Amino acid sequence: MITAGNIDDYLIEDIIHDLLLVDEEILTHLQSEPPLLGEIGYYLISAGGKRVRPALTLLSFRAAGTQPIEVVVPIAAAIELIHTASLIHDDINDGTDLRRGILTANRKFGNSSALVAGDYLFVKAFRIGGKYDWEIVRIIADACALLAEGEIQQDLNQYNTDLSINEYLDTIHKKTASLISACSQVGAVLSGASSEIVEALTKFAFNIGMAFQITDDMLDVKGVEADTGKPTGNDIRDGQLSVVSIKALEQLKGDTKDELQTIIRKKENSDDEIKRAIDLIMSTDSMTFADTMANEYADKARDELHKLDESDYRDNLELIIEMIIQRSF
Amino acid sequence: MITAGNIDDYLIEDIIHDLLLVDEEILTHLQSEPPLLGEIGYYLISAGGKRVRPALTLLSFRAAGTQPIEVVVPIAAAIELIHTASLIHDDINDGTDLRRGILTANRKFGNSSALVAGDYLFVKAFRIGGKYDWEIVRIIADACALLAEGEIQQDLNQYNTDLSINEYLDTIHKKTASLISACSQVGAVLSGASSEIVEALTKFAFNIGMAFQITDDMLDVKGVEADTGKPTGNDIRDGQLSVVSIKALEQLKGDTKDELQTIIRKKENSDDEIKRAIDLIMSTDSMTFADTMANEYADKARDELHKLDESDYRDNLELIIEMIIQRSF
Repeated sequence: MITAGNIDDYLIEDIIHDLLLVDEEILTHLQSEPPLLGEIGYYLISAGGKRVRPALTLLSFRAAGTQPIEVVVPIAAAIELIHTASLIHDDINDGTDLRRGILTANRKFGNSSALVAGDYLFVKAFRIGGKYDWEIVRIIADACALLAEGEIQQDLNQYNTDLSINEYLDTIHKKTASLISACSQVGAVLSGASSEIVEALTKFAFNIGMAFQITDDMLDVKGVEADTGKPTGNDIRDGQLSVVSIKALEQLKGDTKDELQTIIRKKENSDDEIKRAIDLIMSTDSMTFADTMANEYADKARDELHKLDESDYRDNLELIIEMIIQRSF
Repeated sequence: MITAGNIDDYLIEDIIHDLLLVDEEILTHLQSEPPLLGEIGYYLISAGGKRVRPALTLLSFRAAGTQPIEVVVPIAAAIELIHTASLIHDDINDGTDLRRGILTANRKFGNSSALVAGDYLFVKAFRIGGKYDWEIVRIIADACALLAEGEIQQDLNQYNTDLSINEYLDTIHKKTASLISACSQVGAVLSGASSEIVEALTKFAFNIGMAFQITDDMLDVKGVEADTGKPTGNDIRDGQLSVVSIKALEQLKGDTKDELQTIIRKKENSDDEIKRAIDLIMSTDSMTFADTMANEYADKARDELHKLDESDYRDNLELIIEMIIQRSF
């Protein structure tokens, strides 16, 4: 059975080894003076992030070609630095208290230091990017710009109970799938693969990015804090709509619809109200709907993957699809 | 006479024209969807920033060589984007209300949107950097990393009335002089100048960066809000030590020293207390000390500049030194 969070158990030995090289590379970029900046980055990175992004970059690189691994390790590190920076900035904006089962950087070090530490990690990542060709920088920078657009789009849609599924999908594309897609794209480009293979891996990762965010949003409703490392019902508490709440609002009628709408739109909710909202969502088949949607993205990811030649790396990428889908149940 | 803020009046026509190209380049990077992100960047950039940084890049480029201007315009735009991003993030952290005579981005658009907009501008800048050689990216990324280190150093030294002049100088080197120095360095490298000329221009800009920050810190005590676009006494209000307060604390004795120390260390001060602190500082010769220090940096900048061949561009760089020094009186 696949359980949440421990991707290492499912990765083949080569990639576990490559990920250690990525971790070593990351550490070399966390030497700041005063040390606090690097420490904040290290604090979150060492708290056992799943390393999904660098793993995708490394696996795509190895599945698509035979270039030496040194070519891809620095940029895989850069992507993890960017991801960490974006988490730190997100947590400031969302006022989040817990991440990966520990205090968020903003809670532990204060908002100001966390903000500057996020900037520092971004800069270190783009410094690494400077050693690569324009195409690589462009892919990553465009993904980061989309990430920012997704964040702002999400902010603008806070408390918007009229949000449509399509608007939601556009936001998670920008906020999550764009950087995940860039991970595989960069790996594939650097492997020297054909444009068909680059495209297949890019689309593969885009689709798992979408599936990943959908299952994450499902976990926010149905997860267990001990497994996910963060409290459930956060999205409802923050007035953030997701596929499950949008679908539930579509299906509920009359009083129960009003009730869910009121809770989502309220700025402060009691734990009982959050629990009530979750019960209302669970009374509809919105979770099944979301699950089907996540599986459709997973199927598309699998189809793209099958355009590559069979290899242990391809099998491992396929296993990541399973991991993402199954972690929600 | 040179007055504060209107650098355009002192720039030669070529550079005014080049700066328009830089502005055009900046605009092309502010097209976001949703538009809000680009709008936040535009809001601050169009509020009449002095464009000191791109002007230094352009002038250094033209003073040191004869490469076509297209070579340098994008990176000059990137530097202004980075500078704007860092101002936006600074203002969030400092809770600043006014900048360039208008509301700060955090006050007008809220902290969350401002934070993401800063990230967006950073990313756009590094996207531009991706088209340049590693050396250029390295110079700018290292300056940005120092900027972050300077910010955190400043935070760590908030309310620290034992701060020494040397520690202050180290912080302003990181916080201000590093990026200003990078401006001229990048311009000089891209012009194809010899390593001696690159070094001279880098040191020139480092020294004016130091002079710039010292005069800025003097203005915080002695400036007029209508001229500077921001209220005076901010540093004291925020518990930030600068050359003037450090020197004043060194010179004051007994009760008056205690009084100034108490005000700087207090988290909340009335306007009368801020006024009293300014009066105490002005009762010492700390402003003269700071002025002398700024002039020494200006002299060093001038010495470096004279290593270049005479040209209108060199004269114009020399005028920028005067502008920086004289704006404080």
